[in-house]
Amino acid sequence: MGEVNIKKLACELNLSAATVSRALRDSHEISTETKIRVLEMAKRLNYEPNPFASSLRRQKSKTIAVIVPEIANNFFSLAINGIEEVARERDYHVLIYQTHENREIETSFLNRLLSGRVDGILISLACEDVDKEHIEKISDQVPIVFFDRVDDDIEGVKITTDDYESAYNAVQHLIENGCKKIGYLLALNSLSTGKKRLKGYLDALKDKGLPDDKQLILKSSANNDENHTLIKNFIAEHRPDGILSSIEELAMPCYYACNELGLNIPNDLKLISFSNLAHAQLLNPSLTTINQPAFEIGVEAAGILFKIFNKRWYEPNETIILKSNLIKRESTRGFTII
Amino acid sequence: MGEVNIKKLACELNLSAATVSRALRDSHEISTETKIRVLEMAKRLNYEPNPFASSLRRQKSKTIAVIVPEIANNFFSLAINGIEEVARERDYHVLIYQTHENREIETSFLNRLLSGRVDGILISLACEDVDKEHIEKISDQVPIVFFDRVDDDIEGVKITTDDYESAYNAVQHLIENGCKKIGYLLALNSLSTGKKRLKGYLDALKDKGLPDDKQLILKSSANNDENHTLIKNFIAEHRPDGILSSIEELAMPCYYACNELGLNIPNDLKLISFSNLAHAQLLNPSLTTINQPAFEIGVEAAGILFKIFNKRWYEPNETIILKSNLIKRESTRGFTII
Repeated sequence: MGEVNIKKLACELNLSAATVSRALRDSHEISTETKIRVLEMAKRLNYEPNPFASSLRRQKSKTIAVIVPEIANNFFSLAINGIEEVARERDYHVLIYQTHENREIETSFLNRLLSGRVDGILISLACEDVDKEHIEKISDQVPIVFFDRVDDDIEGVKITTDDYESAYNAVQHLIENGCKKIGYLLALNSLSTGKKRLKGYLDALKDKGLPDDKQLILKSSANNDENHTLIKNFIAEHRPDGILSSIEELAMPCYYACNELGLNIPNDLKLISFSNLAHAQLLNPSLTTINQPAFEIGVEAAGILFKIFNKRWYEPNETIILKSNLIKRESTRGFTII
Repeated sequence: MGEVNIKKLACELNLSAATVSRALRDSHEISTETKIRVLEMAKRLNYEPNPFASSLRRQKSKTIAVIVPEIANNFFSLAINGIEEVARERDYHVLIYQTHENREIETSFLNRLLSGRVDGILISLACEDVDKEHIEKISDQVPIVFFDRVDDDIEGVKITTDDYESAYNAVQHLIENGCKKIGYLLALNSLSTGKKRLKGYLDALKDKGLPDDKQLILKSSANNDENHTLIKNFIAEHRPDGILSSIEELAMPCYYACNELGLNIPNDLKLISFSNLAHAQLLNPSLTTINQPAFEIGVEAAGILFKIFNKRWYEPNETIILKSNLIKRESTRGFTII
């Protein structure tokens, strides 16, 4: 794949591939002026020569990169642990990178990973609109496996959970425990992951004969600091008796908002959240969660990446779906009839 | 600094520096056999040539590495956010790496970061015994700034908090609220950070006239899965009426242990923990914490690193100490006299 890039560079520069190759190796046969031209074009086209990528021997970086929106998230830190376990067995290092849900940061970092810095990439996409073309361009050069936050429009292996069913079951549980006005905290709506969760929510309402009121869907901010106020205002104005939070970052703001509004969880409002909040059990009240098999997702995603490295068989456009669990706790407790 | 290494390689190989340099550039003037010898020695001595480190121009990687024991830790994820904020302003990327408290993993990763992969390193040390010599060898080649988990024996800039005073004040608070038998959950004891926290605990006991009973100090495991049982047995056997946990990973196991032993926090046992547990306020009961200024530590540490990059003045062996805060909550509430 290095060769292809040198050819591309050569073509763009109207030079021979041999000249480009020598320039990149800082050969004395090439003038400084040409070297600068080559390096500038290499930079512009995101080509980064690997010191060991010469024909002398094909050294691997023995490093994989994991790109996630946030590390301060129990789901992602567990998934990373799963990835690391697989990598460690194969003597690979794992670099972690967080995008803070910012597409520009994600893109810029992906560019840096091209050509030899890492052997492969595991990515959970930021929630802004995906630049499909750019990601596919990168995956032509470095193997990429997608996990959890995926986009079905992008080609590649994807490891997800049963997002639709999980949201559907959560809403059904809220209804069974007496909720009639269920709010939804929306996130990831530009990704397939988010769309499926939303659809699960809407379909459950419909199947149970509850109206779907657009006002009960709160679009969260990518900036978490804003979500506390957004959620507090949302609860105060619409007074839902149940809430499904589509990501874990939005669950704690519900607790703070209810405390401030003098509302009791679960009596005034029942709450369920995606996904692996570490100490959901110790909260006051303990929180009902949709637990994704985060560690297993990491193991599975890394396993596929190593299959790609080792040229073992895998289905190039497969989506592997692991099941989540609804863990019922105090925050959704129904009324007890004595 | 590249030159020094090429000289070292040349010396080890009994070759001229020019030959080594050409071999590393894959020059046609050098035989394949020699190239292999040079690359093997380069690998053995942890020398990794930077493709852009030639005299043509000194390209920076524009990347810094942050090495922390765990990312699933509120202190570290906040500190990383602080580091990223500073890096972003300067258009630098931040790679994150977790060592899981394992010295071998830490060392192996540090070796990979030598010579051009990153421009600098921010590290919070794993809690196993430090290999002082190795870290100093690396810091000769890549600027390193230490934060939070530091070792005073290693030369370098260090950003810490007032660990001694924080532990002292925490114990004093427990005593003021009625505790007479205060346990200490020990971690980091191979590092200055841990030693200062322990000394703060011991001195506070002494100053307040409480005996220091070695049995009330529980040495935690680096493997978090084991700590739950260790702590449960410790509480069951010694029945402390107060506990100071020296790291946040040990606080939640205390909650679970008390639940299982039928002990009430704070009535039977009062609990304080280092450090920034995100939702300490929402726990049942809410947890008294020693909050370290984690974000600020990150900002400060990254700021020093950029001073080093820009050759601006800094004190090469300075320890910068930021103050922590004791946030009193329900878990240490004293008896109310009516």
